[in-house]
Amino acid sequence: MSETLNFRIDRWNGVIIDMSKQSLENQVFVDKLKESIAQWTTEGKRGLWVTAKTEHSALIPSLIELGFDFHHAQPGYLCLTKWLPVNIPSHIPGYANHYVGVAGFVVNSNNELLVIREKYQGLKNNTIAVWKLPGGLADAGEEIGATAVREVREETGVESEYICIIAFRHMHNFRHGCSDLYYACLMKPLSSEINACPQEIEECKWMDVSKNTHDTQEH
Amino acid sequence: MSETLNFRIDRWNGVIIDMSKQSLENQVFVDKLKESIAQWTTEGKRGLWVTAKTEHSALIPSLIELGFDFHHAQPGYLCLTKWLPVNIPSHIPGYANHYVGVAGFVVNSNNELLVIREKYQGLKNNTIAVWKLPGGLADAGEEIGATAVREVREETGVESEYICIIAFRHMHNFRHGCSDLYYACLMKPLSSEINACPQEIEECKWMDVSKNTHDTQEH
Repeated sequence: MSETLNFRIDRWNGVIIDMSKQSLENQVFVDKLKESIAQWTTEGKRGLWVTAKTEHSALIPSLIELGFDFHHAQPGYLCLTKWLPVNIPSHIPGYANHYVGVAGFVVNSNNELLVIREKYQGLKNNTIAVWKLPGGLADAGEEIGATAVREVREETGVESEYICIIAFRHMHNFRHGCSDLYYACLMKPLSSEINACPQEIEECKWMDVSKNTHDTQEH
Repeated sequence: MSETLNFRIDRWNGVIIDMSKQSLENQVFVDKLKESIAQWTTEGKRGLWVTAKTEHSALIPSLIELGFDFHHAQPGYLCLTKWLPVNIPSHIPGYANHYVGVAGFVVNSNNELLVIREKYQGLKNNTIAVWKLPGGLADAGEEIGATAVREVREETGVESEYICIIAFRHMHNFRHGCSDLYYACLMKPLSSEINACPQEIEECKWMDVSKNTHDTQEH
């Protein structure tokens, strides 16, 4: 009696294989996978999903040879897929393709806006880094207001409270061909002392909004 | 005189290596990479980025052995990274972690709403698929209104015009641990005949909104 691959069926009649749950030697796994693919094809199964941790990387060339393609990866693992039906185009859904950026619009009772200049922003083409709102990328699972609070704290040292989203924009061809949604959030400052992140931030200050608007109109 | 790896420096003092631009044998590439890593470490370089197409998959186990980790993948390629500085935590930014879903709220002049029932939605736990708005995932580079027009057309056969976003929500732990932003868009129908996608849609109809609201109140 031969061992079988450890797998489960998803609700789209696909097959999910977690390599970390296999107790087989590499070549035995590949041989079993070949047999299994033949059987799943006969049974009309649709998408095959394999997840390999870094320690299974020796198996990746064999999976590519068996017709798998990369689907997505995160630090620590790589997911590969193979679409079985020959007469139906692949219905395997793509991976997340959007970054979410969040900025804090932090204004104090003196009508001063919290602004930063980034350390690395200006290095390209010798341009000078511009003053901008503190902010950064949302982690998966993080609420937009929580990202704003965290990024304002990490970049400027100022504690703040999320009030509401005041604007958002959708930008394309951001990093790695992905798109980016950027949310500007109105924030109430809970502290005033600046303690800027030395790794990321070149300069940070409370900018007099009325004065700077006036300057812009003059020049 | 030895060949060198084909690479470029990014503006964060990182190194970008595109394996598809190397004309070296696998083992020669790995040996050169080892030498290069030693040199880049001495020079204070930060993040290393390697992009491998499926045809370079034989090199992946060696890259993992050299301390690279998976960063992200898309069909056709895998990107791996390695952070060089030992005393600074990694500043390598993560990959996109948000899906964007868009639904069309299509109402005609008879106050009827265009609704669908999905083919596969109900298969889990034998639940019955619910009536919902037509919609789906935004591709990278696609405007939200364009996604709404495309998904309404693909799922129902109805042509429609994007008017505005009427609501959005942020959900976590969607697929593969990523988050999901879902936008409902008001759409003006430009045609009325239903021609539902046989692969994805079980049923599609124009639902009398006032009548169904009444029904719900009764039961």
